[in-house]
Amino acid sequence: MNLEAPILITGGTGFVGSHLLEKLISLGYHNIHVTSFNGVPPEIAAIIPANHVHMIDLKNHEQVNLLIKELKPEHIYHLAAFAAVGSSFDQCKMVLENNSEIQLALLEAVRDHAHEARILVIGSAMEYDLIGNTQRVISETHPLGPVSPYAVSKVIQDLLALSFFYSYRLQIVRARPFNHIGERQTTDFAIPHFAQQIVAIERGQQTEIHVGNLDAVRDFTDVKDVVEAYVLLMEKGTTGDVYNIGSGRGYTMQQMLDTMCHLAKTPVKVITDPNKVRPLDVPAIIADSSKIRKLGWQPKISIEETVQRILNEWRAK
Amino acid sequence: MNLEAPILITGGTGFVGSHLLEKLISLGYHNIHVTSFNGVPPEIAAIIPANHVHMIDLKNHEQVNLLIKELKPEHIYHLAAFAAVGSSFDQCKMVLENNSEIQLALLEAVRDHAHEARILVIGSAMEYDLIGNTQRVISETHPLGPVSPYAVSKVIQDLLALSFFYSYRLQIVRARPFNHIGERQTTDFAIPHFAQQIVAIERGQQTEIHVGNLDAVRDFTDVKDVVEAYVLLMEKGTTGDVYNIGSGRGYTMQQMLDTMCHLAKTPVKVITDPNKVRPLDVPAIIADSSKIRKLGWQPKISIEETVQRILNEWRAK
Repeated sequence: MNLEAPILITGGTGFVGSHLLEKLISLGYHNIHVTSFNGVPPEIAAIIPANHVHMIDLKNHEQVNLLIKELKPEHIYHLAAFAAVGSSFDQCKMVLENNSEIQLALLEAVRDHAHEARILVIGSAMEYDLIGNTQRVISETHPLGPVSPYAVSKVIQDLLALSFFYSYRLQIVRARPFNHIGERQTTDFAIPHFAQQIVAIERGQQTEIHVGNLDAVRDFTDVKDVVEAYVLLMEKGTTGDVYNIGSGRGYTMQQMLDTMCHLAKTPVKVITDPNKVRPLDVPAIIADSSKIRKLGWQPKISIEETVQRILNEWRAK
Repeated sequence: MNLEAPILITGGTGFVGSHLLEKLISLGYHNIHVTSFNGVPPEIAAIIPANHVHMIDLKNHEQVNLLIKELKPEHIYHLAAFAAVGSSFDQCKMVLENNSEIQLALLEAVRDHAHEARILVIGSAMEYDLIGNTQRVISETHPLGPVSPYAVSKVIQDLLALSFFYSYRLQIVRARPFNHIGERQTTDFAIPHFAQQIVAIERGQQTEIHVGNLDAVRDFTDVKDVVEAYVLLMEKGTTGDVYNIGSGRGYTMQQMLDTMCHLAKTPVKVITDPNKVRPLDVPAIIADSSKIRKLGWQPKISIEETVQRILNEWRAK
């Protein structure tokens, strides 16, 4: 474990990226660079030198080439992607182009300028066929069959990376995280959206919470447990292989909401909003994460603790 | 079987499209439209009214929308794609963008303007993982793991179509053809490239044939048998399902070349050219096509007959 090694986190100022940055700093790494597209939250600006934040467009092959060539990273955590599942139905073209372009630019730059770098590529549980194949617990060999355009774009990122492993022997490990939650996730996602509304109700700014489908079962993991898995895969994952990351526990969205309402400081009235129901939602997704557990990973943080942190985040705003 | 039904073949003037057009005309269909990007070969111009040939850019959403809205096709054979496997390693960005954009524009147009159309979407045997998983005979449940950028782009076309079946209930059937050969295939592909050179040797224009890796085993099917499978799937395929199309017989490239040399009118000297060897070639690909055989399909044309036709095509040029 060389703490001086140059590390690059693409999307390192975003939701997961920022937690990963904190984790790597806590482990003693001190040559960490991040790319950012949307700007740097103050809590991240406080923990990384300004000249380690690269405000580049990852779709731009020249900019990516230049960065990889100059930095010559040994580890690349490739987290950058347009990540909103719900809105991707209306923005199909953008999400497909964006995520495949980002992936291609990075892989070509690494192939040409940092061939020995280890790269962790982040796919998604949403890549799996969860409609045609109705198993609830999903291992890495489950057939692919993405539903949303976002999920298709994650298949592209995942399999394009595999193709560069096959064709150019790039040192790529792939991850397929299931749902994960924590601070700094945008309200495009259900749990922070719930938290935002609950806190507004606590403050008397609104009277009820508007939610979509609550029957869906999802495997929620704390983002801090997820980034531990990423660090472990960077160190010990087999190149070319893919690893599920998920707690293995399924929660209905109703259970998640109930847990959050239970932690609220006032009673919360719930209204189902048909506009929030997606064209097609997958009934249940639970991870079989035995493959990464064999490397030594397990989630440590309870769902109540995670949800409490998220509510506190919104209360502090 | 409504012979008046408007039918659209995207890429209908290309290699496979033109054989499909001939097949549908022979079956009595007489309201067939095609899209074309590169122009119309004379033998195709002779069999379809000029105003049934739509010279549009399938990446252009507006042009595709307009065509689908006006034509309201009942059957869409979606064959258009950038199809050169070998050169796609150097043109990764183009092949990915092109093939995903074509797919998205068509699916969105059908969703919005011809929701009841049946669409046959053409994937490829190259979508399967043929490196990590070394089975030689490949069924539809074999894991995906494309090697070339072209193969990645076919996964995109295939799974984006599945996602539109799941999300919008489009009437989509998917095919994964294995290697197919016949007249009008470009010399980007091995067999016509062999044929071109053999005929040049017959004419005394060159003295030897230059070839790439001859050890690879491929499942070759006559394009005329393949288009029969397409018509069958349009009529009887289960929507949402995917079907392999291939003879189930494996030939080494050496066997194919030997068969062609045997049919040549002069002795042929063979030279292996390292520049023609791809970054990574898949050792063996043979179709398990039992699923489509249950619908009544089987290949009818011998490989010798196919190869003879291809040689005669080049002799007539």
